[in-house]
Amino acid sequence: MLTNPRSDRVRSVHGLGRRPVRERTGRFLVEGPQGVREAVRYAADRVVDLYVTSTAAQRYALDIVQPATAAGLWVHEVSDEVLAAMSDADAPQGILAVVTQSQTTLEEVLAKAPRRLILLTHVRDPGNAGTVIRGADAAGFDAVLVSDSSVDVNSPKVIRSTAGSTFHLPVVSGLDIDATMAHLASYGIWTVAADGSGETLLADADLERPHCWVMGNEAWGLPEAVQAACDEVVRIPIYGKAESLNLAMAATLCVYASAGARLGRRST
Amino acid sequence: MLTNPRSDRVRSVHGLGRRPVRERTGRFLVEGPQGVREAVRYAADRVVDLYVTSTAAQRYALDIVQPATAAGLWVHEVSDEVLAAMSDADAPQGILAVVTQSQTTLEEVLAKAPRRLILLTHVRDPGNAGTVIRGADAAGFDAVLVSDSSVDVNSPKVIRSTAGSTFHLPVVSGLDIDATMAHLASYGIWTVAADGSGETLLADADLERPHCWVMGNEAWGLPEAVQAACDEVVRIPIYGKAESLNLAMAATLCVYASAGARLGRRST
Repeated sequence: MLTNPRSDRVRSVHGLGRRPVRERTGRFLVEGPQGVREAVRYAADRVVDLYVTSTAAQRYALDIVQPATAAGLWVHEVSDEVLAAMSDADAPQGILAVVTQSQTTLEEVLAKAPRRLILLTHVRDPGNAGTVIRGADAAGFDAVLVSDSSVDVNSPKVIRSTAGSTFHLPVVSGLDIDATMAHLASYGIWTVAADGSGETLLADADLERPHCWVMGNEAWGLPEAVQAACDEVVRIPIYGKAESLNLAMAATLCVYASAGARLGRRST
Repeated sequence: MLTNPRSDRVRSVHGLGRRPVRERTGRFLVEGPQGVREAVRYAADRVVDLYVTSTAAQRYALDIVQPATAAGLWVHEVSDEVLAAMSDADAPQGILAVVTQSQTTLEEVLAKAPRRLILLTHVRDPGNAGTVIRGADAAGFDAVLVSDSSVDVNSPKVIRSTAGSTFHLPVVSGLDIDATMAHLASYGIWTVAADGSGETLLADADLERPHCWVMGNEAWGLPEAVQAACDEVVRIPIYGKAESLNLAMAATLCVYASAGARLGRRST
């Protein structure tokens, strides 16, 4: 059992809470049973180390520790103090994993003839970004694309907000927005901006063809040039007096509209 | 201009960040231009005092300060230091208001023959509660009902998350959940639980009749007895590998499905 909260190992795990360390090492931190369980289930080849307190090892024996051991992963038992020192969370839940970042490229995603994508640019709030990844997963999307001007999708807050979904579908980040738009166009993928200025209502958008939602900053939306480069601009109607929906709400309605179009009916 | 950050007035405004003070005084704090603007526009009779720094007074002269003055409201210019001392926010935006809590009762809401309601019970996260209020507003709902086992809807975090929507439609809180369910039934309002165990898909729910969504705790959903008392249990389909949607996402899809049913088509 690891018991020294001041060891180099503890320090290096805790360091993954900071972006420069994540970029240098190509690793990130997954905290809590839900995220760790999904990492073990869907991305075991990317799990470097799994750390668990004895209490948590008992509680999650069947759904996490046994499958992890069976998959040949390194499962380290640690003291409560060590886990707290590794953690970035206010209330650590006794289990965390160090995972290597996804290596999936845009080219690999496009080579699989995706039908439903979502591209985030200039998104700054970690909770929003994570929630969009979760929503895209729930709606059966093929991948989430994230520009280099957005929040780091491997930050602890984003990872927590995805509730494990980051391991369920490819999340490709660090993309140049202009090159990505051009790439999508060259693959014949219809790009659809979600913006209050849109003339097409969401219910009227053609979402049966392969398409990619393009969503921008929480406060000011998409850069003008990006919106101009989209094939269509779609608006979610507001029936009451609210000025707008927040990004995560808007994205949820958009991805579920896409899921519904696939089925030729309402999605929900 | 108020310049003493240690005055009784400053202390009493700042105290509204705490629930016991809000309950004793029947008042709450609205921070930032969006919330204050909507309070002045839609609930001027409930605005007790408006506090603004000189910088913010210039920036929001046309859309907040002039309408507030014209409505006979008390607009106090304060130093940056005073505003920061009054505020509950990490980054105060130069303007805040003290507002009396809504006095609207469930009886008053029901007397107006509402067609679309949403009832929250055991909801604990302020961001979720605020986002649901914002979504209900956007979807043109008649009111939001909140049980006494939920987060305080007048807390600064909830108010911020509503983005002004708390002034756009009645938000009735502190309700006894059993009495409220009985009340809804006696008015012929169909109660619809949103839960992963539902047999009816959201797209198949009858949302044309007057109805009330009933949504529960973020982690464990509705208490069994409440769900059993609902007329219908509706499920949002999951197409990918996500376990669930979060409360705010689920509520957004539900209220927009209701808005669409009103129009006899997809709502979005």
